[in-house]
Amino acid sequence: MKNYQKYQKQYFMPPVPSLKWAQKETVEQAPTWCSVDLRDGNQSLIVPMSLDEKVEFFKYLVKIGFKEIEVGFPAASETEYNFLRTLIEQDLIPDDVTVQVLTQSREHIIKKTFESLRGAKSAVVHLYNSTSLAQREQVFRKSKQEIIDIAVFGAKLLNEYAQKTEGNFKFEYSPESFTGTEMEFALDICNAVLDIWKPTADNQVIINLPATVSHSMPHVYASQVEYISENLKYRDNVILSLHPHNDRGCAVADSELGLLAGAQRIEGTLFGNGERTGNVDIVTLAMNMFSQGVDPQLNFENMPETVAVYEKMTGMKVYDRQPYSGKLVFAAFSGSHQDAIAKGMKWREEKNCEHWTVPYLPIDPNDVGREYESDVIRINSQSGKGGIGYLLEQNYGYSLPAKMREDFGYTVKNVSDHLHKELKPEEVYDIFKKEYVNLTTPYSLIENHFVQADDIKTTVTISVNGEEKVLEGAGNGRLDAVSNALKENLGLDFTVAVYTEHALESSSRSRAVAYVGIEAGGKTIWGAGVHNDIMDASIRALLSAVNRMQEQQ
Amino acid sequence: MKNYQKYQKQYFMPPVPSLKWAQKETVEQAPTWCSVDLRDGNQSLIVPMSLDEKVEFFKYLVKIGFKEIEVGFPAASETEYNFLRTLIEQDLIPDDVTVQVLTQSREHIIKKTFESLRGAKSAVVHLYNSTSLAQREQVFRKSKQEIIDIAVFGAKLLNEYAQKTEGNFKFEYSPESFTGTEMEFALDICNAVLDIWKPTADNQVIINLPATVSHSMPHVYASQVEYISENLKYRDNVILSLHPHNDRGCAVADSELGLLAGAQRIEGTLFGNGERTGNVDIVTLAMNMFSQGVDPQLNFENMPETVAVYEKMTGMKVYDRQPYSGKLVFAAFSGSHQDAIAKGMKWREEKNCEHWTVPYLPIDPNDVGREYESDVIRINSQSGKGGIGYLLEQNYGYSLPAKMREDFGYTVKNVSDHLHKELKPEEVYDIFKKEYVNLTTPYSLIENHFVQADDIKTTVTISVNGEEKVLEGAGNGRLDAVSNALKENLGLDFTVAVYTEHALESSSRSRAVAYVGIEAGGKTIWGAGVHNDIMDASIRALLSAVNRMQEQQ
Repeated sequence: MKNYQKYQKQYFMPPVPSLKWAQKETVEQAPTWCSVDLRDGNQSLIVPMSLDEKVEFFKYLVKIGFKEIEVGFPAASETEYNFLRTLIEQDLIPDDVTVQVLTQSREHIIKKTFESLRGAKSAVVHLYNSTSLAQREQVFRKSKQEIIDIAVFGAKLLNEYAQKTEGNFKFEYSPESFTGTEMEFALDICNAVLDIWKPTADNQVIINLPATVSHSMPHVYASQVEYISENLKYRDNVILSLHPHNDRGCAVADSELGLLAGAQRIEGTLFGNGERTGNVDIVTLAMNMFSQGVDPQLNFENMPETVAVYEKMTGMKVYDRQPYSGKLVFAAFSGSHQDAIAKGMKWREEKNCEHWTVPYLPIDPNDVGREYESDVIRINSQSGKGGIGYLLEQNYGYSLPAKMREDFGYTVKNVSDHLHKELKPEEVYDIFKKEYVNLTTPYSLIENHFVQADDIKTTVTISVNGEEKVLEGAGNGRLDAVSNALKENLGLDFTVAVYTEHALESSSRSRAVAYVGIEAGGKTIWGAGVHNDIMDASIRALLSAVNRMQEQQ
Repeated sequence: MKNYQKYQKQYFMPPVPSLKWAQKETVEQAPTWCSVDLRDGNQSLIVPMSLDEKVEFFKYLVKIGFKEIEVGFPAASETEYNFLRTLIEQDLIPDDVTVQVLTQSREHIIKKTFESLRGAKSAVVHLYNSTSLAQREQVFRKSKQEIIDIAVFGAKLLNEYAQKTEGNFKFEYSPESFTGTEMEFALDICNAVLDIWKPTADNQVIINLPATVSHSMPHVYASQVEYISENLKYRDNVILSLHPHNDRGCAVADSELGLLAGAQRIEGTLFGNGERTGNVDIVTLAMNMFSQGVDPQLNFENMPETVAVYEKMTGMKVYDRQPYSGKLVFAAFSGSHQDAIAKGMKWREEKNCEHWTVPYLPIDPNDVGREYESDVIRINSQSGKGGIGYLLEQNYGYSLPAKMREDFGYTVKNVSDHLHKELKPEEVYDIFKKEYVNLTTPYSLIENHFVQADDIKTTVTISVNGEEKVLEGAGNGRLDAVSNALKENLGLDFTVAVYTEHALESSSRSRAVAYVGIEAGGKTIWGAGVHNDIMDASIRALLSAVNRMQEQQ
């Protein structure tokens, strides 16, 4: 690819090795979650949300369990101002939920921001200015000290306006474009702001480190976070927060490694909505914790609903392969995967397992409101006996003998391959009935009688292409007698190799299904019969197999 | 969220700390890429590809630059067998491209696999069996030794069949479900296979470590990879390969950290197609390297074409926020982002920068065939003066004075907010023309004359709502004279505060545009005039501003 030499790294390493995080294994408790769906998320939409949509989305974020929600940049837009006023005046903010507003470090903006907050029970005022080398040089054309002065100026104004405004305010500062900033400078500017705010145990401050644009590999970001975490002043009274974007496809990794590195709070969005490649997907982060036994403190038990609300409010689509939420993320089309899942589910039932270990399913789809029937075992030309058998058993109660399942698997695969489409469970069931069950051409059962002597003698009345025939036969069992009657009177050549049956429903009046495999010409041919009477079911199964044999010859 | 206690970690740490990778900063050269689009990718599609589609996709993968392409599981499906035969018999595999086929460790499958390869110039035969604790217990119900025996059995058969089949074969072994396997056991089984194959410098072997299901954080996977890398036998003659899946949203991070940990090869797909959440997205991996100045050895210079081919072949959609390829990933709707991009682009031009450093754009969109005009600066109610001004200048050549840009920015934002939609560049231009340029109600210019004496005297003929009026005036410049003529004869009260003009096209016959800001009632009101004659353009600009003032009163 030409032009690669036009690029070089745009990030800065911490001045000292900061790799303690790498010795930790995983995240052991949920961070504080802050939704920025209504600000960062909204700002990135082709059509930003209306006031009504924002109110509805806010209520849903509260329902899911968010305790901190950034509601916008009220001084920058009439809609965002009105939205915040609506939340406050209509008393839509629960007591345990804090709203967060963004402001630049300019007095008229800070003034309007505090105006927009009057009457709010609890609010985070989030001050930011851009600190990266690129933005200092190209956009602001200011020195490091001038950039610090901007932050300090705003920090002082926040103190001032908070004092003269009624309400309960917490402060947050972001060195925006942190990931393009020299680490020592990022630390200096954060500490300069902290020196103004002087956080205490009762009055903690949030320092937020945005990956405004992700420039490095995730372990570098983690080391940057650890360096800041270990060198911040007032550290015990600072809540260290992250705000990752997904430019390199690593926002989840950035967040997780950043949490190991000392961060305590994550700003992100549902399904990773947000500018360009999006913010970090809080759903994935939360569910990653859930999948390792950590309570995520957010509720995604009805993921299809969460997806629907999100899609309606934002006009965006959740990607089919989005972890935990996409349409296809539990789907197993491949035969070997289906087989392993079926065996894993059986094992889980047999052993009454405490912990989830089913292969190819990182979590139980039911835990997020998804269904095995429609979401997991899906049948196309890549599928195999395991999945197809499992589906027939789970949805319709048919438990085929292993070899018959294989035979049926090939039948279904071929249908899917030739139709060039996915088959729904009912289509698979239809193929089963049409190809195997109670087949009547050329031979169909009319009636049969048995007489028990030394062996079993039978009189079977069948229809051969519509013509009635009465056949006599004998054998050491009933099916054997019928089989002999067919062979001797109709000149057929086969051996009954497999016979099994089971009840189809669980009541005493249930129907039975019988499966018969006959061997003829070196191969096994399968049939099934369903009837209230088990003997009738068996004969129908045998006739079905014989009918299939005739068809294949 | 209930049920979280149902889960616990399903991965295993290496027995010794393996964190050397964390001291490296980034990936410095592209790995060997192996596309598994036609196997893993295809297997996960609701409707798998037809033979023709596979052939077309294969050709495109070759065109992009893949040198290793897994073409399927030829012993498992007629379509895949026929596909491979078509590639070989129609001579569609270039000399520098190796096809790869997957096989289980069963003799009839290995036999058929080698049959499918007859005549192939160069092929990787990829043997796998599942090694995780869960699969050993639940699916295979076999001991560790029995699982090793399966792998060794297959490895021997590969030796045997390769010897008796004409062709140039390389071997690959995957301990499938590696990420759920005890590390010591994974190492043992790989080494057992290597002891059969005994790789040499001339006959290297691929050992592939799949994150069949991703269970851990990415730094744990990296440590697992490093442990295997450092303890494999015949290490110099082993190519260590990774095959990550995206269950935790970390496939890119897994791959990148895994490369630092010793891996040399990546199996993945375009745009992360693949089972469930997908395989790792090779596009993102390659472009991440590109964005740091590393030649990715794959060509995504025409990303829109790559997206279109992929979507046509697979029936999948590339997600709007997929890094580097999604529709929205270069979009800047926010005013401050647009402003920074505009300033960054200007800086880049002025300074003739060697390296790319434009804020909010990790790479130059042109490098992947995307356009600034349609893809980057996009206008909605969140947008601001910077972007709107940039767009008007880049697309239509109008360079508004800073304060007028701000005024126009608010005008456009309001239109977008009220229409509740995104505005295309031509719509923004239409708003500009309609609201600012050559306005004629109530006043429009008919003709004007100047006489130069001590000062400038003018006779301006204008139409006032259709009625012709001749106005006389004088001033120290032409525009001043016209301004005075208007004020004195029409009873208007304003001051001309800003006047600038520039040519609109670059030839000598080009039109000019003039911008006039008048102050009245404490605010500045803007107008623009366009005409072949610069004086005419100025008077029209003044009249436009005056007309707007009249309208606002």
